[in-house]
Amino acid sequence: MHIFYTPDIAGDTYTLNEEESKHCIRVLRLPVGTVVNLVDGRGGFYTAEIVSDNPKKVGLSVLNVEREFNKRNHYLHIAVAPTKNIDRIEWFVEKATELGIDEITPIISDRSERKVVKEDRLNKVITSAVKQSIKAYHPKLNEAVSYDAFLKLPFEGEKLIAHCINQGEKRYISELVQPHQKYLILIGPEGDFTSDEVDLALNKGFKPLTLGENRLRTETAALAVCFEINYLNR
Amino acid sequence: MHIFYTPDIAGDTYTLNEEESKHCIRVLRLPVGTVVNLVDGRGGFYTAEIVSDNPKKVGLSVLNVEREFNKRNHYLHIAVAPTKNIDRIEWFVEKATELGIDEITPIISDRSERKVVKEDRLNKVITSAVKQSIKAYHPKLNEAVSYDAFLKLPFEGEKLIAHCINQGEKRYISELVQPHQKYLILIGPEGDFTSDEVDLALNKGFKPLTLGENRLRTETAALAVCFEINYLNR
Repeated sequence: MHIFYTPDIAGDTYTLNEEESKHCIRVLRLPVGTVVNLVDGRGGFYTAEIVSDNPKKVGLSVLNVEREFNKRNHYLHIAVAPTKNIDRIEWFVEKATELGIDEITPIISDRSERKVVKEDRLNKVITSAVKQSIKAYHPKLNEAVSYDAFLKLPFEGEKLIAHCINQGEKRYISELVQPHQKYLILIGPEGDFTSDEVDLALNKGFKPLTLGENRLRTETAALAVCFEINYLNR
Repeated sequence: MHIFYTPDIAGDTYTLNEEESKHCIRVLRLPVGTVVNLVDGRGGFYTAEIVSDNPKKVGLSVLNVEREFNKRNHYLHIAVAPTKNIDRIEWFVEKATELGIDEITPIISDRSERKVVKEDRLNKVITSAVKQSIKAYHPKLNEAVSYDAFLKLPFEGEKLIAHCINQGEKRYISELVQPHQKYLILIGPEGDFTSDEVDLALNKGFKPLTLGENRLRTETAALAVCFEINYLNR
């Protein structure tokens, strides 16, 4: 199955951009008449036929469209402090896309060793995972934002924060939330959130969660949360 | 907290090897009198004091020992086909160690693109994760073995196989196993197991599992299994 990401598709025909066309003709060597699949990142899963093999602009004719393809039954937004080693966050966004996530926000907190994130690079990783795992919905990646500014944004749904500070009782996600909801979950940096940052979130209505006894790296904790939320919504 | 891995510790004193000693004195710059922690990989968690700062052989005096530190309540053995890109398997063993795993076997199946695994390299990754996540038990990494030979080995416990072939009914792990057991779970290569390989496992009593509708990469499926087994044993 050959999948192309076509976010700007409209109507019954589509022309692949130069990069995708070159990949299609020069690398995959797909001839005219080949049936391929397209995803638009908004739930559209297309079956299309190659009608022109111009290596700079491959022409496609849509044969069939499925809307809301594998629509998710909940909405998961994870806001995570980017790791010092960006590979770890790239790894997280790839795996979260495979397992199922809707929105990701890099948050810059007091102890974040990394203050800058190349969103375009992370988006490429997400798009690649979308195609590899056959997702019709493309997770939304927001620009990096400061922790304080992020907490000022409105969010309707279940709000949780993962931190390692021994303050107050923490409970498992399964004890804190109901299935089929909107979830926003905060994951701290390598050095954890400061107690002020935790207090700020608690005052905003975030509930503290525990992922168990294991000491997890930032990106592992974020993926564990992604796994648990998807598990609870099966 | 500074943690050193000391698999050969015996008695009340210990001398770090040259590499660890150099790290301790030249990098961490820990002076005599500093209290550090040691894990022996067999459940022993030690509190020790630096009594000699020789940068080639740091002397430690054990102050306290905890046996069966954070002993796990189940036994998880994952046998996974190594990925073409070894980074993906290195990533898996690191994350599985953080989340909790007891034994890992690389299995070479018909469609494995990679036939050779550097166990010493993978073991270094595991040891590093053991220290980072404060584990007193060091997961056991077996040498790579052919799929057929592996299935001839005896195993007492719950046996599952993850594959994508549409043959027979598959169920979720939670429907297939009980908590607090020994589990052996097979994960196929990028190209999946062959139907002959699946039949062989089914004839050996392995039950087919599903991880849901997502199409997961080999290393993601292996980690998802690790997540689920640990989740079911909380």
